[in-house]
Amino acid sequence: MKAKVEVFLKPGVLDVQGKAIEGALHGLGFGDVAGVRVGKTIEFDLKATDAEAARAEVKQMCERLLANTVIEGYRVEVGA
Amino acid sequence: MKAKVEVFLKPGVLDVQGKAIEGALHGLGFGDVAGVRVGKTIEFDLKATDAEAARAEVKQMCERLLANTVIEGYRVEVGA
Repeated sequence: MKAKVEVFLKPGVLDVQGKAIEGALHGLGFGDVAGVRVGKTIEFDLKATDAEAARAEVKQMCERLLANTVIEGYRVEVGA
Repeated sequence: MKAKVEVFLKPGVLDVQGKAIEGALHGLGFGDVAGVRVGKTIEFDLKATDAEAARAEVKQMCERLLANTVIEGYRVEVGA
């Protein structure tokens, strides 16, 4: 089973990497870009076959390792 | 219009960050995790209203700045 986790800074937390990319895009002539946010995507395979159990396990991974829940939120997708 | 870009190392390129996360997950007891790949997600707003034009513009951004196309591939999503 495939799992995909997206980790983003929470709204209100300054995203300096996003700001830097936004500035660089403006400099390249892409002036209509705004509100750039940068996150991490982590994809992996799981041996679990039950989607609900897999989702619960991946959430645990996020809480314990993948996300810093003080400043980051996460989205979990579990699929075939 | 919202745009989302996912940048991943191409298959075959060693993903050391993914390997490190895989080792850490195994160490935490999540032993059934395999094939971890880590990528970047970049989300932003665009003023463009035509989806096809927006997609072409975002692809240009990927080629010129967001992805290192020698070792990285990218996926573009453009939506309302």
